[in-house]
Amino acid sequence: MVDTRKVGVLGGGQLGRMLIEAANRLNIQVNVLDVDKSPAKQISSHDGHISGSFKDAAAVKKLAESSDVVTVEIEHVDVGMLEEVSSQVAVEPSWKTLKIIKDKYAQKGYLESHGVQVAESIDLEGKGVEGLKEVGSKFGYPYMLKSKTEAYDGRGNFVVKSEGDIEAAQKALGDRPLYAERWADFRMELAVMVVKTKDGVLTFPTVETIHEDSICKLTYAPPRNVSPEITARAQELAKKAIGAFEGKGVFGVEMFLLKDDTLLINEIAPRPHNSGHYTIEACPLSQYDAHLRAILDLPIPESGLRLREPAIMLNILGGQTTDSHVQIAKKALESPNASIHLYGKGDARPGRKMGHLTVTAPTLAAAEKEIQPLIDVVDQQKGKAVTPSPASSSPEPLVAVIIGSDSDLPVLKAGLDILTKLQVPFTTRITSAHRTPDWLREYSKAAGTANGLRVIIGAAGGAAHLPGMCASWTTLPVIGVPVKATHLDGVDSLYSMTQMPRGEPVATVGINNSTNAALLAVRILGATDLEVRERLRVWMEGNEKEVLRKDQKLLEEGYQTYLKSMGK
Amino acid sequence: MVDTRKVGVLGGGQLGRMLIEAANRLNIQVNVLDVDKSPAKQISSHDGHISGSFKDAAAVKKLAESSDVVTVEIEHVDVGMLEEVSSQVAVEPSWKTLKIIKDKYAQKGYLESHGVQVAESIDLEGKGVEGLKEVGSKFGYPYMLKSKTEAYDGRGNFVVKSEGDIEAAQKALGDRPLYAERWADFRMELAVMVVKTKDGVLTFPTVETIHEDSICKLTYAPPRNVSPEITARAQELAKKAIGAFEGKGVFGVEMFLLKDDTLLINEIAPRPHNSGHYTIEACPLSQYDAHLRAILDLPIPESGLRLREPAIMLNILGGQTTDSHVQIAKKALESPNASIHLYGKGDARPGRKMGHLTVTAPTLAAAEKEIQPLIDVVDQQKGKAVTPSPASSSPEPLVAVIIGSDSDLPVLKAGLDILTKLQVPFTTRITSAHRTPDWLREYSKAAGTANGLRVIIGAAGGAAHLPGMCASWTTLPVIGVPVKATHLDGVDSLYSMTQMPRGEPVATVGINNSTNAALLAVRILGATDLEVRERLRVWMEGNEKEVLRKDQKLLEEGYQTYLKSMGK
Repeated sequence: MVDTRKVGVLGGGQLGRMLIEAANRLNIQVNVLDVDKSPAKQISSHDGHISGSFKDAAAVKKLAESSDVVTVEIEHVDVGMLEEVSSQVAVEPSWKTLKIIKDKYAQKGYLESHGVQVAESIDLEGKGVEGLKEVGSKFGYPYMLKSKTEAYDGRGNFVVKSEGDIEAAQKALGDRPLYAERWADFRMELAVMVVKTKDGVLTFPTVETIHEDSICKLTYAPPRNVSPEITARAQELAKKAIGAFEGKGVFGVEMFLLKDDTLLINEIAPRPHNSGHYTIEACPLSQYDAHLRAILDLPIPESGLRLREPAIMLNILGGQTTDSHVQIAKKALESPNASIHLYGKGDARPGRKMGHLTVTAPTLAAAEKEIQPLIDVVDQQKGKAVTPSPASSSPEPLVAVIIGSDSDLPVLKAGLDILTKLQVPFTTRITSAHRTPDWLREYSKAAGTANGLRVIIGAAGGAAHLPGMCASWTTLPVIGVPVKATHLDGVDSLYSMTQMPRGEPVATVGINNSTNAALLAVRILGATDLEVRERLRVWMEGNEKEVLRKDQKLLEEGYQTYLKSMGK
Repeated sequence: MVDTRKVGVLGGGQLGRMLIEAANRLNIQVNVLDVDKSPAKQISSHDGHISGSFKDAAAVKKLAESSDVVTVEIEHVDVGMLEEVSSQVAVEPSWKTLKIIKDKYAQKGYLESHGVQVAESIDLEGKGVEGLKEVGSKFGYPYMLKSKTEAYDGRGNFVVKSEGDIEAAQKALGDRPLYAERWADFRMELAVMVVKTKDGVLTFPTVETIHEDSICKLTYAPPRNVSPEITARAQELAKKAIGAFEGKGVFGVEMFLLKDDTLLINEIAPRPHNSGHYTIEACPLSQYDAHLRAILDLPIPESGLRLREPAIMLNILGGQTTDSHVQIAKKALESPNASIHLYGKGDARPGRKMGHLTVTAPTLAAAEKEIQPLIDVVDQQKGKAVTPSPASSSPEPLVAVIIGSDSDLPVLKAGLDILTKLQVPFTTRITSAHRTPDWLREYSKAAGTANGLRVIIGAAGGAAHLPGMCASWTTLPVIGVPVKATHLDGVDSLYSMTQMPRGEPVATVGINNSTNAALLAVRILGATDLEVRERLRVWMEGNEKEVLRKDQKLLEEGYQTYLKSMGK
């Protein structure tokens, strides 16, 4: 074993189970306190587990006695017990942190006092219906009514849409310690897994999360249509928030990206989190590896938290039948890039987290395409109307071939034939720099950010602004094909492309030579895609053989016969 | 669970353990027949395991009774017992296949009879010392003496280097059933994991394997300095070999790549194999996922066997001390892309497989660099002299900037500054198309195949052949910077680059504009590397702000003052 210390965990659900997967690989013993045959215990066979509830003081004490570090997979624990055992065993993260975080109202106040932006909140404990009405006048409607404690996966939350809702809200949550939150009019939800070690704070990449019925449904890594500037800002905010707390381990930080691009912290979890499941496949170190290493003071090299490939995680929730989760998993077996994780929970109950799956792919768009049929199964189970995805199996385009006018299309035919032959998915669009400048701008800005494009080929003649303007609006490589127009033999177009000012290059090929533009696009894709490169190599080898064959023929026949066979 | 059928496994070592890791995620129950606390049983807690030896007939019968499909993690089993139980339970792969493969001489004969190339072999059973001498006269020395059965990880093999070795060879292996193999004068060893399903035969990528003391030490995926044509041929050969056998599951196929580039099968293993461990991290589906699915007739989408990233696997073998494997694992914790697998075998014994680790990275060269310090630890433990790797932490170059003469270097300075500023690792080389044509050819052919280069920038003036010739020998994208020479204002160089024949494009930028060549290289890398793209975006944003600032100044000061501030 890498470490002879034993880790004790309060709770043996799926988070504990995946923590044990990581610990098993390092031969680190994890003692689980939970009922027998709980998900975590199923994959860990030793006699150090404790049977019982993680809310039972005697059991917690027993766990502490048999472990060197105690951690949690759920924050709804008796913090007082952890405070007590912390004199005899390390508790990570600190019981003080758990105490603050498990009370969501206290959590928000704590973050605010440390200069971290959160949604505005009002304490409602003991305020009854009158309190709820007052909040309505102050925040307006809708607002969010939340239980301070024991609220997760939508339980303990109520959206108060109007004064008419207050009675129902009071009925649903009135017996719990309540507070209200101003409605965050967000554009989307983001999340960052943060690792707090003895030396500092590290972050995994920012992801987009999609919730449905207040339960996490999907995470996208990286987020869709979010600038790198925002994802970096989200990581900084998450770091700042977690830096304010004591103790070691991973923390899930959920936040809102508002319509004006500001970020607000929504909630913090002091443990591995659903929004970090994707790290198992998508990153060299997973959130579970990181948690284990952080609480044991083992090294965590920061670049191990990078994204290997874009990834989408889909939760497998229990549906109306006891085997609904199995149906999703079975369908996922047909998905080449889907890694399936079932948690060993037996029969499904509606809304219960039964498992998850992660699809990784070279581009997020490819992952989206692959996961869609699985999302459709999930939605069908929920009784949602599903528009079947178009049956077309055409892959997402990697190359866009743009022309200013359809009159340039004949020049491009040879290049488009090459792309087809070498199996490079492409799209052709008409985007004139002078007749549709706004459309060209929109298309160029979206290229590679809102879609999976990687290379653009622009053909133009005369003043030939198309590829140069496109290059000014995109960060993708732009290839220019100078088209021979009426005058100047195409030299005008050639100069318009090669002589771009310093800053925005156009990769220019020969006049009318769309073949070379296409081959250059193939080379660019092949720089990282070895399959594409191999297809190109085979193609080039074919050309080489063809020329060698002609040479042999010329040698054997002599130039006169050869010329005759050419009809000259 | 995805499947309610139970899988029985003969043997609970590391292969069984990693098979269970895969099964756990699908909640498929695997019953292990081996001693208690064996590596596989440690991560599987249920009451279906059988305690005992996989060589014990009664225990095998008990396993068969409690399972729906029986498989093996080792081929040295009593095939007769499997034949017996195969009437009541599915055995995969077929006992007939195991029977042929476990006898290496029979294995070779079977392959030969199915038209698969193997090393020439001679039966030596009962032939004694005289037989060994006869082989020497027929094959010459050295030749390989092997036990037909129970030979693995170097045990049961003897290299007979000369007639003088025969006595020692007879002493070492004389009591075993022997055969001799003609020495294969190989350039390197390759291996392919093959999946045999009810529908056909699929393969994982080809890897290079490095053996030391006849035990696998390293695997490289993809192999180093091997053309895609050869790796494809290796996959075809492996498919053909495994297609000849009955039954389902994964098979490890080890082969020799001879100096004339022909391939010979060395050995086949009818089970998951050491040379396929890398698939756990490097491929969407691992060899263990594939084995489980194959024997249960579950879907295996072929593209799930692709390489996500290049990967290197290093075995962690027992050394001279009982904790030698722990020392390697601890060192590996500092390696950001290393996934560590310890097998739970307790104290190390010299040469015993205690674990392995896999480093994945965007390029094989980056993985090689990262894993070298870990190989050094392994070598040190073996008492081998280790040349410490250069402490330089300079990353491997992604861009090569080639010039025909040092006189072109001043033109390139601006571009090299850009690459430095945008943190793109590059190298600069002098490779003249006319003065050193062979060196240019060698450098161009190695680019991107023997190293991690992804883009080449070539600068030249006048007839300017450099980038065009480079493009003819490489499949990487080549960017051309036309340099203004003494006459013709650089137009000569420009035309020499843009007007390349159809087939070998040069991405040409403006005359003397090395800035744009560098930025184009950055765009090409950024097409797949989002971090690079983000650095470029920020840089372009800076330029935009700078121009806007100047516009504001011009507006505020008027053109006369502005011109004065420019000193005009």
